[in-house]
Amino acid sequence: MTIKYLPDFSDIKKAHLTIREYAHRTPVLTSSGINKITGGELFFKCENFQKVGAFKFRGACNALFSLSPEAMKNGVATHSSGNHAAALALAAKIRGIPAHIVMPDNSPEVKKNAVASYGANITFCKPTLQAREDTLASVIEATGATEIHPYDNFHVIAGQGTAAKELIEDAGEFDIIMAPVGGGGLLGGTAMSAKSLLPRCKVIAAEPAGADDAFRSFQAKKLIPSVNPVTIADGLLTSLGERNFAIIMQNVDEIVTVSEEKIVEAMHLIWQRMKIVVEPSSAVPLGAILEGKVNVKGKKTGIILSGGNIELFAKLSET
Amino acid sequence: MTIKYLPDFSDIKKAHLTIREYAHRTPVLTSSGINKITGGELFFKCENFQKVGAFKFRGACNALFSLSPEAMKNGVATHSSGNHAAALALAAKIRGIPAHIVMPDNSPEVKKNAVASYGANITFCKPTLQAREDTLASVIEATGATEIHPYDNFHVIAGQGTAAKELIEDAGEFDIIMAPVGGGGLLGGTAMSAKSLLPRCKVIAAEPAGADDAFRSFQAKKLIPSVNPVTIADGLLTSLGERNFAIIMQNVDEIVTVSEEKIVEAMHLIWQRMKIVVEPSSAVPLGAILEGKVNVKGKKTGIILSGGNIELFAKLSET
Repeated sequence: MTIKYLPDFSDIKKAHLTIREYAHRTPVLTSSGINKITGGELFFKCENFQKVGAFKFRGACNALFSLSPEAMKNGVATHSSGNHAAALALAAKIRGIPAHIVMPDNSPEVKKNAVASYGANITFCKPTLQAREDTLASVIEATGATEIHPYDNFHVIAGQGTAAKELIEDAGEFDIIMAPVGGGGLLGGTAMSAKSLLPRCKVIAAEPAGADDAFRSFQAKKLIPSVNPVTIADGLLTSLGERNFAIIMQNVDEIVTVSEEKIVEAMHLIWQRMKIVVEPSSAVPLGAILEGKVNVKGKKTGIILSGGNIELFAKLSET
Repeated sequence: MTIKYLPDFSDIKKAHLTIREYAHRTPVLTSSGINKITGGELFFKCENFQKVGAFKFRGACNALFSLSPEAMKNGVATHSSGNHAAALALAAKIRGIPAHIVMPDNSPEVKKNAVASYGANITFCKPTLQAREDTLASVIEATGATEIHPYDNFHVIAGQGTAAKELIEDAGEFDIIMAPVGGGGLLGGTAMSAKSLLPRCKVIAAEPAGADDAFRSFQAKKLIPSVNPVTIADGLLTSLGERNFAIIMQNVDEIVTVSEEKIVEAMHLIWQRMKIVVEPSSAVPLGAILEGKVNVKGKKTGIILSGGNIELFAKLSET
């Protein structure tokens, strides 16, 4: 097994200095209505307001600005149907280097347009992991670009950890900090920031029950890849990365699973009560609380809202 | 004709002191994406984040806290299917007096529940103006409550003016300030604050083309009531009030009308780019800009987002 170097909190501090000129310091919001419903004191770190509408910009930006001149001379490449694609495309545009993005041809139009609007070179492929990896390999061979993995990447993980660092700096101590888990970039970074700054704070991850590879890996203490995950939380379909798993085993106290019903209920609650747009992945931690998997009563709990990229419709009646 | 006393900016300043303990000082947000699309520099005053999800709480709160002990001893009453009902119910709850709300029986469940959750006494009636007025009259006769009109009310108008006052205090000078117009409470208060604090600032109101009584009244220089208005901007279906019309004639520079198509386009743009939930009425000023009715290029423009009470749905695909 290859040794993979893991970032630590000093890398998150460095990442914060690197990206602060480019990323938003997003607000921390509260809702007295949601506090009343949950019986806790919740603080939401609003990465839906981050550039490209998701925390992913932090990691992509840190990864791009950490590249050596040699590594970046032919640009960067990745495969992604979602927020990482847009984040890498924007970060590359800011850095002034080409971004080569492999996207499944069934990606939502709105995501294709977002990536294209940042000037990335898009290569479409069939929507299978095999096709995505094969197409990326041939794009890298043709261009000489450096691959930036969406989550199993040292600098990406360090960048994602800056969100929790800001949350703690802006809202003080916490009893619990929660994040959703997909590939584990956000969770890994969040857990390192939380444990470094607040050693007594519990870090709890929430994962859709239909995509519970992190939960099962955590229980089994070995990496168990996802098989046919099904969830509306489309940002959390990916399998946990190796670096991410190692960091999670060291820094996370608990992983809980959440039903689709409670994810949707939590998402509607955030829309209605907080008047902010969040995507399903963002709602998984609150869903876990609503489902009774995490007891926040009388506790101060920080929650990372991971992003806000979702197409919304209204029931409008002409009267 | 009865003389109706009109508030002026000193009443808005008083209102601000009265309500500041109870109402949120809402944030002012910007969007580089929307600035790029419009060519202007836009500042959005986010009354969707106000208590009960709309600016209406400012006026209702000021009206309640301005009542004499005699006037409030039997509580307050109004007829409303929307945000004013919730605002009055919450303000009465805070003041510790009963609120009697007449609601059309076809009001959305979510609005009925909101009003009920604040402990108001609800009387349902048929959804016609006649039935609403008759029912309100009999409720007032039975209870001795004091009517608080949703917009043609001295203290309500003064309260609504506090949003624009905060906008200017927090974001500085403006070339243009825009608000939607329905009954004219928000527009009247906004215009007085804008003209008092920034005499050179233009005040432009935006109104749905399908409910254009303010536009026509402004052109004709006399109050022309609305007949069968049709618009998705359900907060703007009401006819301009008398006090409101008088204030508007003195303080507003221009009223423009907006197509339904551009209202919807603007609303989606705010959801997508700003990641905040706004109702159709909030989107009317930006709709006017998108439609080319107001030229904001190179100008600094303030826009009041009136509220965020709308039921949303997502197109979610399980993958």
